[in-house]
Amino acid sequence: MTDFNKTVVLVSGGLDSTTTLAIAKDLGFICYALSFDYGQRHVSELNAAKKITQTFAVAEHKIIKFDLVQIGGSALTDNSIDVPSAPTEGIPVTYVPARNTLFLSYALAWAEVLNVNDIFIGVNAVDYSGYPDCRPEYIKAYEQLANLATKAGIEGTKFKIHTPLIEMTKAEIIKKGLSLNIDYSMTVSCYQSNADGRACGVCDSCRFRKDGFEAAGTMDPTLYQ
Amino acid sequence: MTDFNKTVVLVSGGLDSTTTLAIAKDLGFICYALSFDYGQRHVSELNAAKKITQTFAVAEHKIIKFDLVQIGGSALTDNSIDVPSAPTEGIPVTYVPARNTLFLSYALAWAEVLNVNDIFIGVNAVDYSGYPDCRPEYIKAYEQLANLATKAGIEGTKFKIHTPLIEMTKAEIIKKGLSLNIDYSMTVSCYQSNADGRACGVCDSCRFRKDGFEAAGTMDPTLYQ
Repeated sequence: MTDFNKTVVLVSGGLDSTTTLAIAKDLGFICYALSFDYGQRHVSELNAAKKITQTFAVAEHKIIKFDLVQIGGSALTDNSIDVPSAPTEGIPVTYVPARNTLFLSYALAWAEVLNVNDIFIGVNAVDYSGYPDCRPEYIKAYEQLANLATKAGIEGTKFKIHTPLIEMTKAEIIKKGLSLNIDYSMTVSCYQSNADGRACGVCDSCRFRKDGFEAAGTMDPTLYQ
Repeated sequence: MTDFNKTVVLVSGGLDSTTTLAIAKDLGFICYALSFDYGQRHVSELNAAKKITQTFAVAEHKIIKFDLVQIGGSALTDNSIDVPSAPTEGIPVTYVPARNTLFLSYALAWAEVLNVNDIFIGVNAVDYSGYPDCRPEYIKAYEQLANLATKAGIEGTKFKIHTPLIEMTKAEIIKKGLSLNIDYSMTVSCYQSNADGRACGVCDSCRFRKDGFEAAGTMDPTLYQ
């Protein structure tokens, strides 16, 4: 039987996914948090994810380890490609091939085992880097796939991928999060944060975050290097 | 630039994926083979996959390690669930939640890095266990997703998931493979083969394979326990 009170939430340790977790919790869901150790440069994210999921008292926090370094093709998983410190044309080299598809597939697997049909992911298609797997049409295609891919789907479950941030600006996301009492100093967005979680301040992810706090008219609690 | 001579082929070490590799090679593709070490019971599959990819002289063979035991929910990844030794009603407990979706997502990531738009997978919807992620409608949905999920898709690549076996009986698959000179004694299909790759003879996968050789009117070269 589907359990409509529970949800799987993807939690990276960043600003967006933390806000998404807060929203899911505020909606009354019992949250099962899922993070990934995929060989990303910014492993301090995972320490942030642990702290955040504890703070939000999730029902369970799983960290799935898999190796995207073997696949490569991104500045986040291949040390020979530098993370850009200024905006670039088109989709930046920090794009990781099929990353959200892999993330959602693990979430789908866990949701099926938990008998849950709701999955939350903090993708955003406004203040973002143009990654294809953050767009509404991608999410819609994934939902269709999920229903065809699974035993639960065949048996009538309609999987729903919730993307509460998808149409919000970064400033709106921050305001929403502050209204839910998130302490954003816990979150790490930087693509190349150091071991203490201190941010570089210049990568795409830092820039969107910094501009977001400024536009929200609130203090930026980020710890910079 | 897309390289139309190359393809990623999913190779488990079983009968179907080996036949699929032989077909891709026979069509003239340079093959990049991808296997998975996901905590399955039948690890002797992977030894078979290594032998097979060597025999077929693939351009590269990657084995991606990831942990589906953490997710559980299947007799293949959870030792507390027994592999059935007789046919069961409905989709059997050997179904692994979102497995082919994860497999295809890794293949998609690698295809994108290789600038390749063709992916071969040996799914079959005739002599099979009713797994949802082996059906044509699932494969079609995955293709649509792949084009929306990726930078390559946005830039015009049309990913094609080739499923040459999908409408074939097991006997037809075996005949096709024999016509391509496959030595099926190299392949391991059993869900619970022992360390030497010897098959149990009673699981679903063994039964489909055994019946296939019989229907093909050819000797079954499988090594049984």
